[in-house]
Amino acid sequence: MSRSRQGSLISVRPDVKVVDCTLRDGGLVNNFAFTDEFAKDLYLANIKAGVDYMEFGYKASKEIFNPDKFGKWKFCDEKDIRAIVGDNKTDLKISVMADVGRTDYKKDILNRKDSVIDLVRVATYINTIPAAIEMLEDAKKKGYETTVNIMAVSKVHDEDLDGALEMLGESSVDVIYLVDSFGSFYPEQIERISDKYLNMAAKYNKKVGIHAHNNQQLAFANTIEALSRGASYLDATVSGMGRGAGNCYMELLLSFLRNPKYNKIAIMNFVEKHMEKLRQESPAWGFDIPYLLTGTMNSHPSSAIQFIKEGRTDYSMFYQELMDNVL
Amino acid sequence: MSRSRQGSLISVRPDVKVVDCTLRDGGLVNNFAFTDEFAKDLYLANIKAGVDYMEFGYKASKEIFNPDKFGKWKFCDEKDIRAIVGDNKTDLKISVMADVGRTDYKKDILNRKDSVIDLVRVATYINTIPAAIEMLEDAKKKGYETTVNIMAVSKVHDEDLDGALEMLGESSVDVIYLVDSFGSFYPEQIERISDKYLNMAAKYNKKVGIHAHNNQQLAFANTIEALSRGASYLDATVSGMGRGAGNCYMELLLSFLRNPKYNKIAIMNFVEKHMEKLRQESPAWGFDIPYLLTGTMNSHPSSAIQFIKEGRTDYSMFYQELMDNVL
Repeated sequence: MSRSRQGSLISVRPDVKVVDCTLRDGGLVNNFAFTDEFAKDLYLANIKAGVDYMEFGYKASKEIFNPDKFGKWKFCDEKDIRAIVGDNKTDLKISVMADVGRTDYKKDILNRKDSVIDLVRVATYINTIPAAIEMLEDAKKKGYETTVNIMAVSKVHDEDLDGALEMLGESSVDVIYLVDSFGSFYPEQIERISDKYLNMAAKYNKKVGIHAHNNQQLAFANTIEALSRGASYLDATVSGMGRGAGNCYMELLLSFLRNPKYNKIAIMNFVEKHMEKLRQESPAWGFDIPYLLTGTMNSHPSSAIQFIKEGRTDYSMFYQELMDNVL
Repeated sequence: MSRSRQGSLISVRPDVKVVDCTLRDGGLVNNFAFTDEFAKDLYLANIKAGVDYMEFGYKASKEIFNPDKFGKWKFCDEKDIRAIVGDNKTDLKISVMADVGRTDYKKDILNRKDSVIDLVRVATYINTIPAAIEMLEDAKKKGYETTVNIMAVSKVHDEDLDGALEMLGESSVDVIYLVDSFGSFYPEQIERISDKYLNMAAKYNKKVGIHAHNNQQLAFANTIEALSRGASYLDATVSGMGRGAGNCYMELLLSFLRNPKYNKIAIMNFVEKHMEKLRQESPAWGFDIPYLLTGTMNSHPSSAIQFIKEGRTDYSMFYQELMDNVL
């Protein structure tokens, strides 16, 4: 069923929620090596900016990942979040992401009454939906808001996606995310696929979210396309910081939204204080030709990240390698 | 009249023409200080890439602009173009831009039989349409293909634009361009406005072009939005080089188009050889927060260019200044 646009370019959609993923997706760039000052200032900027959720990072298993080798936001210990937010008596809600198969969720995700976390987002591939649902039900039972983020859907067959959406529709999850992991979708495709998600969401009384990557400079365009179809949970990061080509810029998203609660200037002040410095200290992120190539070939950005890390610029050879390895 | 999408994401639209504006819009960044090697390699890359038109620059009046103060592509003397292209016995056509009021077109634009130029593009504001038409008829009489590029339409009232489009419809011009000079349009607006252009074009048997700016990281998204509505002349520049936030990346556009005549690798090889070096030598271009601010405020990028040139990063103060000066 094709849907029509929701809202207008000058009106407020009260269902919209903005989710800042800078520490989480940005942490994939710099191995979560953020200073506490950065995290604290980002928290304060998000509050001032009217951002709805701030994702601090992952709830990764310390039995799988060695805590000596990652910054603290790979694990998001309760005490580390509290060191930044105290009891978080603000309107900004706290989110963490938990990957299927990489989280000791029964142990590491506390009951919500013992945590400052509000939202648990479960990231899954299409072939681990049952495991994702188990985690989602655990989180819901513990009292959390929940989302499920189905990654790499650009590689999923329609009938498999339909089946997964039905299973998730019947679960207790609150929000189902359309995730363009490889930055391969054009707005026309986002229009069609978000309609699919939104039709399912309407049937089961769920919300839909969008998480975009900037491989083709379309992260913002795809985010507002999904928004205009009816998606309401919108992921963004400051200066687009995120794996590979990065994400939808928070600066762009807050400039687009008309709700006066959103204040882009608070984010721009944060950018002025922190982001230029971080760009110099951290590995690169953001649009570049290698990410364009993996994006258009619907491929994981890891090979492009490696290409850039090695200082290579022989794009045509990289393209040949991709064709051998990807298609 | 609302229109439907033309073509699909996997088909070829034979009406599409790709126009490389790197020397022309990029020349606004570096005062046209391109080496002859750069121009020649770009010419050869465009031929290999299957690009349809290469715009060499402006036909500016030497009585208004001092040739000692600008690179040669501000003026595009016949001999300078021929030094790069010879007699241009290729499928790549040669374009120049002529600004209303800044070109001695009667003298400086030769008869086509005496020139390697194929296409004359007349840039005009809404209030100089009659002067533009005079120039267009002169160029048509001399034998050229012609386009008219109505700048800054984001500031034009609908009824004025309708009137201008009717006047141009009745002229001999071949292509009418939708130009988002300030990078202020969202794809939803491009959809509506390009439908307006396309309806007029259908009435008068004209083509429609799109020239986008990247203030909101939407230059590519807006270009393919206009394309999917039916626009067929598509402006792009290598690495998006162009005034302020720059333009639609040629790399992105050629990756999107499915016609096998287009070869993005030829452009990527050119990028590898020239663009990193040029980025280091030239003033900056490309998306940045000051351009986002002028874009969302539908304002000329000159203040943002100045802000960046001065090395300022106090975005919130710049925003206050813009509100005083623009609104």
